Amino acid sequence: MQALVVDGNVQLTDLPIPEPGPGEALIRITTAGVCNTDIEILSGYMAFKGVPGHEFVGVVERCANEHLLGRRVVGEINCVCRACHFCRIEMPHHCANRTVLGIAGRNGVFAQYTTLPEGNLHLVPEGMPDEIAVFTEPAAAAFRITEQIEITANDRIIVLGDGKLGQLIAQVLWLRTKKLVCVGKHPWKLELLNRLHIRTARVDEPVEPGADIVVEATGSAAGLARALELVRPEGTVVLKTTVAGASTLELSLPVINEVRVVGSRCGPFRPALEALALGNIEVRPLISETFALCDGVAALHRATAPDVMKVLLRMEPIPAQVSSIA
Amino acid sequence: MQALVVDGNVQLTDLPIPEPGPGEALIRITTAGVCNTDIEILSGYMAFKGVPGHEFVGVVERCANEHLLGRRVVGEINCVCRACHFCRIEMPHHCANRTVLGIAGRNGVFAQYTTLPEGNLHLVPEGMPDEIAVFTEPAAAAFRITEQIEITANDRIIVLGDGKLGQLIAQVLWLRTKKLVCVGKHPWKLELLNRLHIRTARVDEPVEPGADIVVEATGSAAGLARALELVRPEGTVVLKTTVAGASTLELSLPVINEVRVVGSRCGPFRPALEALALGNIEVRPLISETFALCDGVAALHRATAPDVMKVLLRMEPIPAQVSSIA
Repeated sequence: MQALVVDGNVQLTDLPIPEPGPGEALIRITTAGVCNTDIEILSGYMAFKGVPGHEFVGVVERCANEHLLGRRVVGEINCVCRACHFCRIEMPHHCANRTVLGIAGRNGVFAQYTTLPEGNLHLVPEGMPDEIAVFTEPAAAAFRITEQIEITANDRIIVLGDGKLGQLIAQVLWLRTKKLVCVGKHPWKLELLNRLHIRTARVDEPVEPGADIVVEATGSAAGLARALELVRPEGTVVLKTTVAGASTLELSLPVINEVRVVGSRCGPFRPALEALALGNIEVRPLISETFALCDGVAALHRATAPDVMKVLLRMEPIPAQVSSIA
Repeated sequence: MQALVVDGNVQLTDLPIPEPGPGEALIRITTAGVCNTDIEILSGYMAFKGVPGHEFVGVVERCANEHLLGRRVVGEINCVCRACHFCRIEMPHHCANRTVLGIAGRNGVFAQYTTLPEGNLHLVPEGMPDEIAVFTEPAAAAFRITEQIEITANDRIIVLGDGKLGQLIAQVLWLRTKKLVCVGKHPWKLELLNRLHIRTARVDEPVEPGADIVVEATGSAAGLARALELVRPEGTVVLKTTVAGASTLELSLPVINEVRVVGSRCGPFRPALEALALGNIEVRPLISETFALCDGVAALHRATAPDVMKVLLRMEPIPAQVSSIA
């Protein structure tokens, strides 16, 4: 099969179709999305080697569960042991022995096929196009915030970052409170939110500080310092950015203001799929360009440009696909 | 009156006895404690100029409330406006217009007299010696943690720092869970905790990571990075250290582990006084040396030495004292 492989640099390679382990499904990828984490991985984040990519839609080609066979699925990215302390206390996504699709110890989805445990898979609702369903994983990461902190209609929220994840977060949290403003660098990106009636501000415009909640999704190491300036005493900063490298911070401010800083990672697929199905969040305007897998190296480089949002990869139809579903 | 004054350097100076404002009491200081914050202030923290010091016991010499007159008191250090947004939502210690005794905008207690709003004062229980009562403010800062996060007997806690505040925190949290270990640099300081049956470890000894709660009270900018290594996924780091200057941090770890970092500052006086009165926390072994106010400059320098814990200042008896109580 064709696959993008990271090993110092990134290139298109021929790999054998992967063999699913016990309890795993073989999934033929139809569409994949490029996330900032993928771009960080190209810069050395997580010291990952192998096939990157973790946002996908695919068709189950082989698995023990006949209800999944031939069905269109999305998949949770943490593959867990179900035996360690964290798995046993119902915190499986912090499994001590986990591999993470395309991020840690497991080949990802910038390829024609991937494997995942059956338990990680969620059926895509009938009629939901691939290019919508592929946003399930990042939308779930936005919904994670609503699991971690209580948000009421009276809470004033500032989302820092107008990128792919910042926009999804702004849309998801706007479902809870209309007192939300998304701060970003790019007028054309902020305009996408304005069309949904979500308030925005450019980074060089003044923003009223004292927010109850500030979500840091700038993708830059400097974002946390700004978040700490904007949050109210005893307010909450949600950290979404994962970057390779260190940040420099004045720590006395969060101590004096007794701020709560909460790291936030992967989230629940069910509310994400539901919000996408109901149209409660709108992702189509976030799609900038779609590349074929054979142009995947160009796609990854294109995704780093400031004038694009989500870059998608479409896998070429494969002759085997029809027969495999039967 | 005699007072220590910070203005670039620190020196003993003659100042007029301060005039209490409306609703304020004039307090004759009998004993004061030196805190690491005072030492940070000497290094430029908060850009404070004036009389430092915020841990004290004193006698009310003048005030409108006759129940306070002539009584021995300790005092909360945040002086608030009772009108701003934070005061109105019952978060007065984050008052937007506050002054803080000996830290921000208000002369402190390394002097023969100070002034504070009557509402800030708490009576010292009969029979509690000054050198015990003077620990009320730092003990309250330790109790603040129990207001901010839930702690059960099953929680495993690591306290980083065997200094004055670290020891008080270890003692206070040990009342909630015996699964606590205090990590420090100084065998003789750790020995003080061992005598109270509290487990300790030296920084160069291995400590089992994965704690539910890690309290960072090292007083050093490097402590947070260590705390983030030791806390479990979705665990809590309590930040107590306020230092002048910036820290350098890898932020991807707390995001991946979804750690909650909580800044923690001043706390409730009532449980602190009660714990001191009942002997639930033991502070006398923390007292290293006592200086007269006239030797205050030497006392502040002595307090920076690694072989001392709490340094106290005793104010000289003043002839006026007897008549003023009558």
